[in-house]
Amino acid sequence: MKSSPIFLDTKPVAYVIGDGALAYSEKLLDSYPRIIVLVDENVEKHCLPVFREQLPNVNISEVISIRSGEEKKNLDQSVYIWNRLTQAKVDRDALLINLGGGVVSDIGGFVASTFKRGIRFVNYPTSLLGMVDAAIGGKTGVDFGNFKNQVGVFADPDIVVIDPIFLDTLEEKQWQSGFAEVMKYGLILDRELWRWLYGKHFKEIEDWNKIITRAARDKIDIVRHDFREKGIRKNLNYGHTIGHAFETYFLNTGNAVTHGQAIAAGMICEGWLSTEAYELEWKQLQEIVNMFDINFDRLPLSDAHIPELLQLMKQDKKVRGGRLNYSLLRKIGKAIHNIEVDSNLVIESMKFYINN
Amino acid sequence: MKSSPIFLDTKPVAYVIGDGALAYSEKLLDSYPRIIVLVDENVEKHCLPVFREQLPNVNISEVISIRSGEEKKNLDQSVYIWNRLTQAKVDRDALLINLGGGVVSDIGGFVASTFKRGIRFVNYPTSLLGMVDAAIGGKTGVDFGNFKNQVGVFADPDIVVIDPIFLDTLEEKQWQSGFAEVMKYGLILDRELWRWLYGKHFKEIEDWNKIITRAARDKIDIVRHDFREKGIRKNLNYGHTIGHAFETYFLNTGNAVTHGQAIAAGMICEGWLSTEAYELEWKQLQEIVNMFDINFDRLPLSDAHIPELLQLMKQDKKVRGGRLNYSLLRKIGKAIHNIEVDSNLVIESMKFYINN
Repeated sequence: MKSSPIFLDTKPVAYVIGDGALAYSEKLLDSYPRIIVLVDENVEKHCLPVFREQLPNVNISEVISIRSGEEKKNLDQSVYIWNRLTQAKVDRDALLINLGGGVVSDIGGFVASTFKRGIRFVNYPTSLLGMVDAAIGGKTGVDFGNFKNQVGVFADPDIVVIDPIFLDTLEEKQWQSGFAEVMKYGLILDRELWRWLYGKHFKEIEDWNKIITRAARDKIDIVRHDFREKGIRKNLNYGHTIGHAFETYFLNTGNAVTHGQAIAAGMICEGWLSTEAYELEWKQLQEIVNMFDINFDRLPLSDAHIPELLQLMKQDKKVRGGRLNYSLLRKIGKAIHNIEVDSNLVIESMKFYINN
Repeated sequence: MKSSPIFLDTKPVAYVIGDGALAYSEKLLDSYPRIIVLVDENVEKHCLPVFREQLPNVNISEVISIRSGEEKKNLDQSVYIWNRLTQAKVDRDALLINLGGGVVSDIGGFVASTFKRGIRFVNYPTSLLGMVDAAIGGKTGVDFGNFKNQVGVFADPDIVVIDPIFLDTLEEKQWQSGFAEVMKYGLILDRELWRWLYGKHFKEIEDWNKIITRAARDKIDIVRHDFREKGIRKNLNYGHTIGHAFETYFLNTGNAVTHGQAIAAGMICEGWLSTEAYELEWKQLQEIVNMFDINFDRLPLSDAHIPELLQLMKQDKKVRGGRLNYSLLRKIGKAIHNIEVDSNLVIESMKFYINN
């Protein structure tokens, strides 16, 4: 069966989404005089051959391979890539293709946007998280000084090509990680998507093409309306305010958890806050907790960790004038942002997650 | 006499220019909840006291002091500033004031634009080069891998405050360096300005307020029309294609010359190219060479350095598809860009500079 992906030409970014996107995208690369591909060692092994096979006429001038893993999303690897680009005498007309998961598109987008004050880049996400989230929306950057994405810029890729073909290369943990973001779209703005998912373990999902297309479009709609996160885009932060503290905590201990594990936990805490500090019904909270518990083990935390977690939250990029606002749920499928929450309630929400 | 500076509210940047600009600017800073000031050690000593005196009601939360000098415009100092901002728990509402010359505004603009994906910044240039050039136009960045401004972004400050009051703190060499850019505006687009300057050594200039206001407005006009340097802004590169190679060469040897010394030499070479490869009259070339020789000693170069200089030019950010285009003069007061020049002529132009 010949597949036909969706082509969305939303200025300044074009999207190609769904089965067949990879092959379809070849013609879109025609106009770039020189193409460099950024990968990590896993992607180089498992995905780059697929890319070459599906886009046989693309002439790759250089392949730059970095080390995989969130703990490698740092300035040292940026320096390595800037050096490689310099050595290869890459000029401003060149294109950087970020072929990989969120780490590759985050770091690659940052490096491209800052090399010679900006060369163009294109994202080919290979992980579920990349396809539904990281590759879309122009947030680029690296971790710095123990804080996630502390150094980076908002910068749009020219094109994002989302082809589920790469999902087969994913380890289970990465697959699970992206699934947390898919569930988030259901919770904050797409009740129908939530219904498709509800009650299922991610391994039971059959039509990933449909799920990914839906989730990616949910994200595209939001970032088109609010690229710089002044308003509605903040809804995407549901689960991330507390979730980022969890993620940073485990990253710093050397026992990194996936982004999905961290924000799944964050969404339980912030779900509880949505009930206690806002209007989410207790019954819907139960539904949310239930769904996350089907898909994720609880993180190994105890009440004793809470002070350190609160400390980490003070460095969140979302802090303004020293205060931290939350994106909470009004009900499943509807979120609201800029809700200030008393820090005692935040502590209680973590206790709820840890002890219930 | 009470001075009244010019206030230009050109979105997205506001400019305050001329005697009295510093005091005038105080009210513009009212809306920023937290202010951090970036300086180098010289500026901290000579200019920060003037700033505090003229803006007594501005509450400076942190002063970050970096090391001065073009050879310190690097990633290490950026890391130092990112660390200081992190330690001070600076959030996205904060403002970074870049008080200093081109190094401070280049590095400060880059660091601000990339910290937490961008905090706002304001430039208070203290050098002549900063006032008429570096602080205007949104080019930020650091040198990397022996190449000037290899890593950086286009990012506009909210406000640029240009007050000649700081000129008194300048060393002669810095003063001279900025004067090369002032002369350049005369050559590429402002024959009247050239006439004001012609025949004078920079120490003979009396009305700096008038000269700086004129030169700054010349630059503002260009960058407003072509922020990302797709067209007319390229005219500003007159003297810089060859000049940057000179600057990089001396920087790498450890005997750095000023930016002005390098581009003054570059403007003689590219003036010669304007005559040989384009339509500049020989008589006007003589006038140009004469004026630069009044103000600058020739750089200590010999024909033997030419191959290395050509090699450096291949890494210029202006290289596109492997080729380097020049901005040349049609006549004094009128430039043209995107002129391709045979590399033999470039070699000849350097020989002209070295031997005549």
